[in-house]
Amino acid sequence: MAIREELRSGCFWRGVLAEAAATLIFVGVVLGASAAPGPLAPALARGLAAGALACSLGAPQANPALTLALLCTRKLGALRGAAGLLAQCAGALLAAAAARLALPDDAGLVTRVSAAGTAGQALGWEIFATFQLALAAFAAADWPAPQGGLALGSAVAAGALAAGPFSGGSMNPARSLGPAVVTGIWDDHWVYWLGPVLGAVLAGLCHELLFAAGASRERLGA
Amino acid sequence: MAIREELRSGCFWRGVLAEAAATLIFVGVVLGASAAPGPLAPALARGLAAGALACSLGAPQANPALTLALLCTRKLGALRGAAGLLAQCAGALLAAAAARLALPDDAGLVTRVSAAGTAGQALGWEIFATFQLALAAFAAADWPAPQGGLALGSAVAAGALAAGPFSGGSMNPARSLGPAVVTGIWDDHWVYWLGPVLGAVLAGLCHELLFAAGASRERLGA
Amino acid sequence: MAIREELRSGCFWRGVLAEAAATLIFVGVVLGASAAPGPLAPALARGLAAGALACSLGAPQANPALTLALLCTRKLGALRGAAGLLAQCAGALLAAAAARLALPDDAGLVTRVSAAGTAGQALGWEIFATFQLALAAFAAADWPAPQGGLALGSAVAAGALAAGPFSGGSMNPARSLGPAVVTGIWDDHWVYWLGPVLGAVLAGLCHELLFAAGASRERLGA
Amino acid sequence: MAIREELRSGCFWRGVLAEAAATLIFVGVVLGASAAPGPLAPALARGLAAGALACSLGAPQANPALTLALLCTRKLGALRGAAGLLAQCAGALLAAAAARLALPDDAGLVTRVSAAGTAGQALGWEIFATFQLALAAFAAADWPAPQGGLALGSAVAAGALAAGPFSGGSMNPARSLGPAVVTGIWDDHWVYWLGPVLGAVLAGLCHELLFAAGASRERLGA
Repeated sequence: MAIREELRSGCFWRGVLAEAAATLIFVGVVLGASAAPGPLAPALARGLAAGALACSLGAPQANPALTLALLCTRKLGALRGAAGLLAQCAGALLAAAAARLALPDDAGLVTRVSAAGTAGQALGWEIFATFQLALAAFAAADWPAPQGGLALGSAVAAGALAAGPFSGGSMNPARSLGPAVVTGIWDDHWVYWLGPVLGAVLAGLCHELLFAAGASRERLGA
Repeated sequence: MAIREELRSGCFWRGVLAEAAATLIFVGVVLGASAAPGPLAPALARGLAAGALACSLGAPQANPALTLALLCTRKLGALRGAAGLLAQCAGALLAAAAARLALPDDAGLVTRVSAAGTAGQALGWEIFATFQLALAAFAAADWPAPQGGLALGSAVAAGALAAGPFSGGSMNPARSLGPAVVTGIWDDHWVYWLGPVLGAVLAGLCHELLFAAGASRERLGA
Repeated sequence: MAIREELRSGCFWRGVLAEAAATLIFVGVVLGASAAPGPLAPALARGLAAGALACSLGAPQANPALTLALLCTRKLGALRGAAGLLAQCAGALLAAAAARLALPDDAGLVTRVSAAGTAGQALGWEIFATFQLALAAFAAADWPAPQGGLALGSAVAAGALAAGPFSGGSMNPARSLGPAVVTGIWDDHWVYWLGPVLGAVLAGLCHELLFAAGASRERLGA
Repeated sequence: MAIREELRSGCFWRGVLAEAAATLIFVGVVLGASAAPGPLAPALARGLAAGALACSLGAPQANPALTLALLCTRKLGALRGAAGLLAQCAGALLAAAAARLALPDDAGLVTRVSAAGTAGQALGWEIFATFQLALAAFAAADWPAPQGGLALGSAVAAGALAAGPFSGGSMNPARSLGPAVVTGIWDDHWVYWLGPVLGAVLAGLCHELLFAAGASRERLGA
């Protein structure tokens, strides 16, 4: 049976492990850099880490929103996608637990809606930032690693700079889930799942239907 | 007839749509990042977004000044150029309208002439910054996407860092038009059309006549 | 005899000299940039210098932790590795001595554990930051210089942004050794040897056993 | 006669014009970005502009120190080198004169020795920063434009971040000459010629004799 075979293949488990390791590294870098004052250091750290990971770990998604978008556009099998999602959440939890031990103060870990704005505005920014990030991720999938990583890292940093003041610029449900579990602060947590997933799925559909070379309705067809 | 055929082709409308989407994303990122204090975050966000878009959307111009420069150097047909211009303005308007809803305060959206300087000085900086940006854009057109996007993004960020304190470093009439329409603030708006268009057209002519490999007067000839 | 031959080859000494020169330049840039306020300038300078050196000096490690990881994974001969380690320490000492003469105040040279944290927390951050850096360095070894340098520089800057507030983000024992010798401040110096070396060796093993294309236990076998 | 022929060739004059245009753009971007507070904006603007220019204008040096180093290593003819130097100085003067008109206050234009240090210390930093920049420039000459520009831009930004607090991080005599002529402030101006030229020539010799693929004493021989 296909599923049993897939579960026995080294390649499958290696990819799942890479997802866990990449999300652990990504979330660890973001949480460490969030201790710096100002919006620039966390945004750049996020982009640089995403770019480097795309090169060093064989282009993992490290982001549940991207994985769901790949599932929706039928670029990833259901089993591999589900295992990847679990691995990402486990990696993010581990990173958040470690960061809580390693940080003097855990208030800055959680992504929050800006006090000057509403949850709806933060949702809008998360959708927008993840939309442009996922467009770059879908396009980057066609290039060899270091160049695709460059485009991806740029989009991650640009989105974090744009959405940062309003929603924390998460663009990644795993990055928001880890700290929420560890600190028990779940305020507006739905924003960080709904926004990125909507944005990424929308971008995946736009890429397949409109922007990809050879885009057409058939690419999504049964 | 050629025009009717062009209007029926999917490629034509896909390109126009990419222009609208790219300008929407670019202006959205710039307006979001402008909420951060200091000149660094908006300038870097601009460059990173431009670099990522050059990779993810098939190298759109996302900038009326660049589109006009391509028209002047006969690298773009009149119909495609006009449709692109309209799409860019529509994308920028949409982004500005959305940003106004999503931002607690809309005073920072508009590009303004620095209080310490004159409109003439701002005009000079816009011409200069767009000149070097358009030189890079013309040269980047000869490379595959991720590498051309790197050069373009660098030039956008460098120009924004240089001109930022004096004119806001717009280098893009659409980026200035959107917020002006939405907020109704039209002070010195002509600077942000005249400067970028002059700079980009000048750069296009310089590139074709002087700096391109095989540059000559014939390249512009009838 | 193989050792005598190696010691006579120009290529051997050229590589050792490149290690010394690269470490001298890297440590000099880091120490100079550390005089700026805020965490961003030193972190970016570190990444940019590492990226540029990877391009200009034929991909030296410039980092004792990376050299030890290459020795552990049998990618470097024992003689070449030992000579490289000595050259790196000599380059870092020279850079620190020169920086002490050139700087008005030498308090900022030494990497220190943050006052708000413990040595154990700093050790954890050094292990983590060097782990992700070394993963990128091992992967980058498979690409031509400018693209590998990009991935390496991104990882160096990301790690420095993440670990900077807690341990100074050294990730490089030579960078910490030079200023310690020159200023005589040896507080918690062991953190900056144990952390990076553990992180880099762990990353080397993970890369060879798990993440490399064709990874397997045989790659490390006798 | 060879000289007369060279003076008649379009390629010669095109190269000289590219030097003037590139230095004008580089110095203009640096002077504009110097108006921002903090050391980060000017340093990044410098690196981004250098990277973009390496791509858009056919890899000009835009730096008298680099041109002199190329002359010393016999990679550039005497006539072409001398014309390039004059063009660079003319471009820098033009940029400085324009910047003086466009800036409300011209005190920030000039590169100065830090008040906390001596001219000797500034000289040391200029030699060091230009040494590593020129090493990258010599290595980058072997790659196609966008990738070489990346290495060059990284080295320029790294050097400016390192030397910035002590000497202004000029690394370019033309960048220092223009503002000195325009404002009449010549304090310690010799530092900005001696330092970069020494550093660049030293780097050129090191590259040819030691670090280049196939380096040997013969490469410099008559």
